Amino acid sequence: MRCVIVDTSRSPFAKLRPVPLNSVKLRDEFWAPRIKQLREVTLPSQYDILEDTGRLGNFRVAATGEGEIRWRIADDSDVYKWLEAASLTLGYEPDERLEELVSSVVRDIAAAQDEDGYLFTLYYNRREERWRDLERMHELYCAGHLFQAAVAHRRATGSGELLRVAVRLADHIASVFGPGKREGAPGHPEIEMALVELYRETGRREYVELSRFFIDCRGRGLVGGSECLIDHKPFRELDGITGHAVRALYLNCGATDLYMETGDKSLLETLERLWRSMARRRMYVTGGVGSRHVCESFGDDYELPNVRAYAETCAAVANVMWNWRMLLALGEARFADVMELAMYNGALSGISLDGRRYFYCNPLADRGRSRRQPWFSCACCPTNIVRMLASVPGYMYSTSGDGLWVHLYAESEAAIDVAGREVRVAQRTRYPWDGDVELTLELEGSLEFSLFVRIPGWCDGAEVLVNGREVEAEAAPGSYFELRRVWRSGDRVEIRLPMTVRLVVSHPHVLCNACRAAITRGPMVYCLEHVDNPEFDVWDVALLSDEPLEAEYVPGLLGGVVVVRGWGVVMDGEAWGDSLYLPLSRAPKAARRVRVTAIPYYAWANREPGPMITWVVLARSGLLR
Amino acid sequence: MRCVIVDTSRSPFAKLRPVPLNSVKLRDEFWAPRIKQLREVTLPSQYDILEDTGRLGNFRVAATGEGEIRWRIADDSDVYKWLEAASLTLGYEPDERLEELVSSVVRDIAAAQDEDGYLFTLYYNRREERWRDLERMHELYCAGHLFQAAVAHRRATGSGELLRVAVRLADHIASVFGPGKREGAPGHPEIEMALVELYRETGRREYVELSRFFIDCRGRGLVGGSECLIDHKPFRELDGITGHAVRALYLNCGATDLYMETGDKSLLETLERLWRSMARRRMYVTGGVGSRHVCESFGDDYELPNVRAYAETCAAVANVMWNWRMLLALGEARFADVMELAMYNGALSGISLDGRRYFYCNPLADRGRSRRQPWFSCACCPTNIVRMLASVPGYMYSTSGDGLWVHLYAESEAAIDVAGREVRVAQRTRYPWDGDVELTLELEGSLEFSLFVRIPGWCDGAEVLVNGREVEAEAAPGSYFELRRVWRSGDRVEIRLPMTVRLVVSHPHVLCNACRAAITRGPMVYCLEHVDNPEFDVWDVALLSDEPLEAEYVPGLLGGVVVVRGWGVVMDGEAWGDSLYLPLSRAPKAARRVRVTAIPYYAWANREPGPMITWVVLARSGLLR
Repeated sequence: MRCVIVDTSRSPFAKLRPVPLNSVKLRDEFWAPRIKQLREVTLPSQYDILEDTGRLGNFRVAATGEGEIRWRIADDSDVYKWLEAASLTLGYEPDERLEELVSSVVRDIAAAQDEDGYLFTLYYNRREERWRDLERMHELYCAGHLFQAAVAHRRATGSGELLRVAVRLADHIASVFGPGKREGAPGHPEIEMALVELYRETGRREYVELSRFFIDCRGRGLVGGSECLIDHKPFRELDGITGHAVRALYLNCGATDLYMETGDKSLLETLERLWRSMARRRMYVTGGVGSRHVCESFGDDYELPNVRAYAETCAAVANVMWNWRMLLALGEARFADVMELAMYNGALSGISLDGRRYFYCNPLADRGRSRRQPWFSCACCPTNIVRMLASVPGYMYSTSGDGLWVHLYAESEAAIDVAGREVRVAQRTRYPWDGDVELTLELEGSLEFSLFVRIPGWCDGAEVLVNGREVEAEAAPGSYFELRRVWRSGDRVEIRLPMTVRLVVSHPHVLCNACRAAITRGPMVYCLEHVDNPEFDVWDVALLSDEPLEAEYVPGLLGGVVVVRGWGVVMDGEAWGDSLYLPLSRAPKAARRVRVTAIPYYAWANREPGPMITWVVLARSGLLR
Repeated sequence: MRCVIVDTSRSPFAKLRPVPLNSVKLRDEFWAPRIKQLREVTLPSQYDILEDTGRLGNFRVAATGEGEIRWRIADDSDVYKWLEAASLTLGYEPDERLEELVSSVVRDIAAAQDEDGYLFTLYYNRREERWRDLERMHELYCAGHLFQAAVAHRRATGSGELLRVAVRLADHIASVFGPGKREGAPGHPEIEMALVELYRETGRREYVELSRFFIDCRGRGLVGGSECLIDHKPFRELDGITGHAVRALYLNCGATDLYMETGDKSLLETLERLWRSMARRRMYVTGGVGSRHVCESFGDDYELPNVRAYAETCAAVANVMWNWRMLLALGEARFADVMELAMYNGALSGISLDGRRYFYCNPLADRGRSRRQPWFSCACCPTNIVRMLASVPGYMYSTSGDGLWVHLYAESEAAIDVAGREVRVAQRTRYPWDGDVELTLELEGSLEFSLFVRIPGWCDGAEVLVNGREVEAEAAPGSYFELRRVWRSGDRVEIRLPMTVRLVVSHPHVLCNACRAAITRGPMVYCLEHVDNPEFDVWDVALLSDEPLEAEYVPGLLGGVVVVRGWGVVMDGEAWGDSLYLPLSRAPKAARRVRVTAIPYYAWANREPGPMITWVVLARSGLLR
């Protein structure tokens, strides 16, 4: 089984090929316990909710005609996304109980399919409604999620049972839509990337053409013409990332997949433009995206409000998905940087430490009212974050004609096919809490290839050593450091990524972050939460950035995290009393010196509610030379 | 004719009584030309649009049954609001052409009324739709605006023609709604205040009861139960101002009017709570309110985004209306402060200097894309700002049992009934550009009364002189300074309100305004616009607040304004290049020293488009002692 996340093994325009997640064994204290929890707690508990809310029952209703469909929005997709995550989890490590749940869900889905291949439980007995409202109904979207689940299920289990269902549905869709047939585009993109993956798994080239067709149909007003649905312009004419964030990023995933199969340069140019628009002007420091509540959409350049951040968990997950595809396509470290950033911060904040509650929005400042919820009526986020968690081992490595690429760092072992030879890689590291990484290679005999080790964009002063000897070339931040040599068993690569605490500031046009800094260390963004700073209101503190910021690993805290401690002054919000505005001359000044403790952003809101802030005012703003 | 704005002359629980706007003649360079433009340009041009868009035609369709209703949303109310403004304008100064337009509109409205009194053109021939959807349809809202127009028309012209239409409609509504009849509340409040005014004009007490009924019906889920429509709780249980800003403020106007007639303390307590919630935690420095695009609503405490401010023109006008009522009820200067602030800033920005274009949203920072529009499909704002402009002369003075109150300053003459005697007041001043005001009183013989002169909240160091001699008592900011004496003709009161340029800062919990200041002078809030600062991007400048800020009247600029000039440093946004986030140590520092010019906020976006900002970064943030 080659349980990969996006199979570019034979994609002519992809630079990198994925490494199956079942080739990797995580032994670390960060991801490994999360994947265990996923298997033992989160996926089983989500299964129960899918059952309790009727989402699974809908398939049985559709199969038997007995009972009523209980529908909110896109409910079938929640089942499919759960199934994709569960399949990947099984692909990583067998689990008898989860296997049974997966098998039963697959059977329910298969039984619900119509004779002509149609499958969307809401319309199982309402034939006249089918494909009528592409703008608002999520038929194509759900189909896409089924395809992704089916591909994951096949890759994880070897069974073609769900893949056959997917192919029948895809063929049905291809009989309805396409050149000379019905024109249309999905209101919610998703099927575009799924069709390409379905091609990769089945070899049916027509699915690539159908994906292209759906992308090319956009911008012609076929789904209402709104910017929210990215139907206001043809895809290739988009000049900035806009509209509903999840839709936009899923669409980009599809276009990237399509590029990797077709080499269509106009797609790549558009994707580059959209990536710059997002990563350089419209992305939170956490990797979260989609700043507006209105339409859950991207905002204008530099529009990144903190309290009212929408930053949907799904959008951060989609950001990981898109950057993974861009990384596979182009092999550039900037994509891995965004991917890692979103994984550790804006996406991971979407799930509680106990694995049972979820954020839909991920604000960067809060008064203590945002709390993770067990479920949502529109339940896209819970079943999306589990897809990401289950994918982590599959994101660690890639290969290329030149050799082996290391994208993510975590204590682990892997057995990777490099040019037809198995290379075993042992990672020894305490990443993400410490930046020292040791890779030990084992292989039969010797093999010349390049080892591309990622130097994260946040890392100044990285050093790389081979067998204890420093390599002279500069390990530039935000690059892959290429080590080409004849490798032999026992060869040891040390990567030293200094994890200093860094204060990060925003472009001045992010008006709400003026004179503020985010505390970061390694891939982690930090925040101040009231429970660690009970002596003052964290919204009132200004950081004394000239004084030392110290990092300390605290084993008992939040599952074990590195906290950052520094000094601040309290601006005394209470001294303002009832005033909203005061003349500068009469405004209370900062008075009290306090110790400040910051925790990783992803871990906030797991204890007592209280104020939280990510962008902290700098007591001396440092604006002037 | 006593053309007053809210007639509390006989309201038992009102502290103040209004002075008719036709008792005042403005001779100033600020308001007088605007009222002239209103009469000569804005109202005639709006009439043409009301005709061209079918809003007036709808009444003729309803009257004759010929043709089709052309309806968007609440269209009848646009006609009524125009008519109210036009009536007040006629009440202030006759104008033959406008009079003809008004008469013709009144005739059209009267002819459209159904035999049973019902009047809402959309449903003129759809009896079964009437009063069915109180949540979304605006029947009661439109009725309220008709009542206000009818009252204004009667007060301005003496004609009872439209008032009779209003009474028939009110009686029809009273036959449908009320205790023991149909329960319900308007989705969009408005009728509550209008019914009380209709009582004041007709003496029909049942209208007060109907107003109370509608207020008491709120919060019972009769119009959907949403917070947006302020139907989530009973009015008296509201603990903060919330929901759709215009709806919330219109509701508060109605509750204030009801309090003034009934003395219901539970209403006043609620209103006090809501006022503090708004003025102390949820109001822009411009007096604009309603910070969220979602539902055009108030946000949380201190949630006051600048670029994405909703700050609807209608909401600022409603803020003026509510504070006028609170001022009449309680006679406290804090209400006049908010009223004046919103009038000169957040509301006045809603109309262009040429009187032909309007803002719906009034952002406090912009990249040059917000431009005033000639009209909107939901055209509430254009016809609301004209109501406010037409009301200005009626907001200047009030009387009470004690004497005469001066709320607003502008070069003018007035003849006011004080305790049954005519007192003529001449104001000599260049307000709002200069804070020196001279009041000269003329009256037959002598009369003992108190003259209450308003010391604005923004004014430190005010002095008051009577006949050239300084009055010893402290003229505290945000108070009425009481001068009690036997007044004689020729008595002269000088009020010296020092108009220094003031930098105003926000409560630290307004996160987006950290280290920023608004430039203010007198009642005016200033902003930086690109056209006055072409050498740099105004979003990139930091103000050197230690250096002098100089005010200068520039006659040719923007109709004649005082500009404020100071010094700043440019933070060099361009040096950031393509970076969104940078380590503090590598972020470009401010380099170039520049001259900075600020203009009054209300006047922005009347020249070439470009960046604008109201809250300017302070180069030295002044956080520390």
